[in-house]
Amino acid sequence: MAGDQVVRNTQVILRDYVCGVPRESDMYVTSDNTISLKNSQQKIAKYVYCTPGSPIWGYGVAKVVDSSHPEYKKGDLVWGLTRWEEYSLITNVPETSFIKIHHTDVPLSHYTGLLGMAGKTAYAAVFEVGRPKKGDKVFVSAASGAVGQLVGQFAKLAGCYVVGTAGSKQKVDLLKNKLGFDEAFNYKEENDLEAALKRYFPEGIDIYFEHVGGKLLDAVLVNMKEHGRIAACGMISQYDLAEPEPLKNLFQIMLKRLHIQGFTHRDYDHIVPNYYEFVLPYIRQGKIVYVEDIVEGLENGPAALVGLFTGRNFGKQEVVALAPPQKQP
Amino acid sequence: MAGDQVVRNTQVILRDYVCGVPRESDMYVTSDNTISLKNSQQKIAKYVYCTPGSPIWGYGVAKVVDSSHPEYKKGDLVWGLTRWEEYSLITNVPETSFIKIHHTDVPLSHYTGLLGMAGKTAYAAVFEVGRPKKGDKVFVSAASGAVGQLVGQFAKLAGCYVVGTAGSKQKVDLLKNKLGFDEAFNYKEENDLEAALKRYFPEGIDIYFEHVGGKLLDAVLVNMKEHGRIAACGMISQYDLAEPEPLKNLFQIMLKRLHIQGFTHRDYDHIVPNYYEFVLPYIRQGKIVYVEDIVEGLENGPAALVGLFTGRNFGKQEVVALAPPQKQP
Repeated sequence: MAGDQVVRNTQVILRDYVCGVPRESDMYVTSDNTISLKNSQQKIAKYVYCTPGSPIWGYGVAKVVDSSHPEYKKGDLVWGLTRWEEYSLITNVPETSFIKIHHTDVPLSHYTGLLGMAGKTAYAAVFEVGRPKKGDKVFVSAASGAVGQLVGQFAKLAGCYVVGTAGSKQKVDLLKNKLGFDEAFNYKEENDLEAALKRYFPEGIDIYFEHVGGKLLDAVLVNMKEHGRIAACGMISQYDLAEPEPLKNLFQIMLKRLHIQGFTHRDYDHIVPNYYEFVLPYIRQGKIVYVEDIVEGLENGPAALVGLFTGRNFGKQEVVALAPPQKQP
Repeated sequence: MAGDQVVRNTQVILRDYVCGVPRESDMYVTSDNTISLKNSQQKIAKYVYCTPGSPIWGYGVAKVVDSSHPEYKKGDLVWGLTRWEEYSLITNVPETSFIKIHHTDVPLSHYTGLLGMAGKTAYAAVFEVGRPKKGDKVFVSAASGAVGQLVGQFAKLAGCYVVGTAGSKQKVDLLKNKLGFDEAFNYKEENDLEAALKRYFPEGIDIYFEHVGGKLLDAVLVNMKEHGRIAACGMISQYDLAEPEPLKNLFQIMLKRLHIQGFTHRDYDHIVPNYYEFVLPYIRQGKIVYVEDIVEGLENGPAALVGLFTGRNFGKQEVVALAPPQKQP
């Protein structure tokens, strides 16, 4: 605990429950002095966990500075659900809360994304739910997002034809020119999503990565092939609607004998070793691209979080990590 | 082929494609004289297959009277997709078209239902998709139907708590008093389906057998437990709507990490031996109840089929089989 000195602990606190898009004034920055983990990188995502008056929770990287838990010892690097504060005292650590970091030849910030929750989610979506065969046709929504960009690349590595959709020309360019998608389109420029999907998938979709919901999901259902698989880990278009958009094409589930699996990465802690075995060689060979912005300093967290919801996406995409102004722990 | 004599072959023919509920005048009875299978029992179901001008297709029992196919020989009893005619010439038999009948110590009419498509579907729904643990809470829609009544009984045999819904007091009584459901209710008497399900499943539903769709599915989604399973093999409320009912609660798929599997029995031909091993002892011990009406004579097929759609359900339930006026083949 840094030589037992008392350390000011900067925290980002949510003032009260937020309905819809958060504003900066919904959060404030404060301090306390209880410590045990020193937090390093933090992922900024739309699904951070909040209790008003407490620091925001999110996925991040931390170094254990003190531990009475048999699984963790001082000096361990871990990733998992941490708080937006410099130091955290974590009590009653559930066994799956933190995953130890053994591979430090890759940037630690990867454990907030590519090697963290987003990567685990994408790997589960593709290989546990999608189960692609070579030549399968894969459609990725929110394709430039933290998970989507990896789903597309993993599906390409599995020999699939991959089309992504995103909400701006910049993002579409990123998908086609940097992330290796076969095709990409801007859903905002399509009046008829069913027809757009028919254009890209004349024979239908084998695997759909669902992160959007609403009208897009309805259009996808009509374009699925028989025995298609839908990996559903987000419906971001529905998060800040008072009433969700109604869907009409559920009958397709039966007609096409579809398999739909709702999941979060938390259902797949057990696949992390397999995932790392799969992905680390590609990372070391530079065969995986992961596009993220790094924002320095917890005090910039509120603005960065709000930016995710308002499309102020730091120029090009949706993935942002908070890093301390200091070097890695 | 009955000593090479020419046999008049009575057929039930659909005049033209039917939109919505069929009328008797949409069908007519005729004859031709090509033979190879002698058809016996026929299941009458809402999902018979029709090409105008040809006999209606449906699941039935037949005896092979002539065969050049290596898998089938004269005298074999089979069940599978046959036609509403006395004799059928089946060309290009797909390998999975017919399942041979080896157990004849049970009524042959069982192979149009309990040991046929309905039984296979129910077994797949419960054990392949639902995968019940003892004590799981199971909800069955269309619970007095051909498949639903078996889903409920199989789930009870697996140690589950089972609630069914149906559309009349008579059917609800049947579920509770004859088919062994723990509870049953008439969905037509419930103004608030979400609240009704909450009443029967205060802790939520583990497994839902989906045969109805629409509002009921929407209410079920809200009442599912985390990691719940939905076996979807029908959405009968939606069959004759010009526009399907919109659903609002799809977000629950993600939130609850639901598994939804659309399927038909055709995806599960390979489980038939397991199914028979499971169910035949129960049938022989009288531990499975299967409620069906038998209508005699192909010439009564059109009226019986129409009755299914108009609720003229032969007094008590929805399961009807056509049998010839003669004895079994």
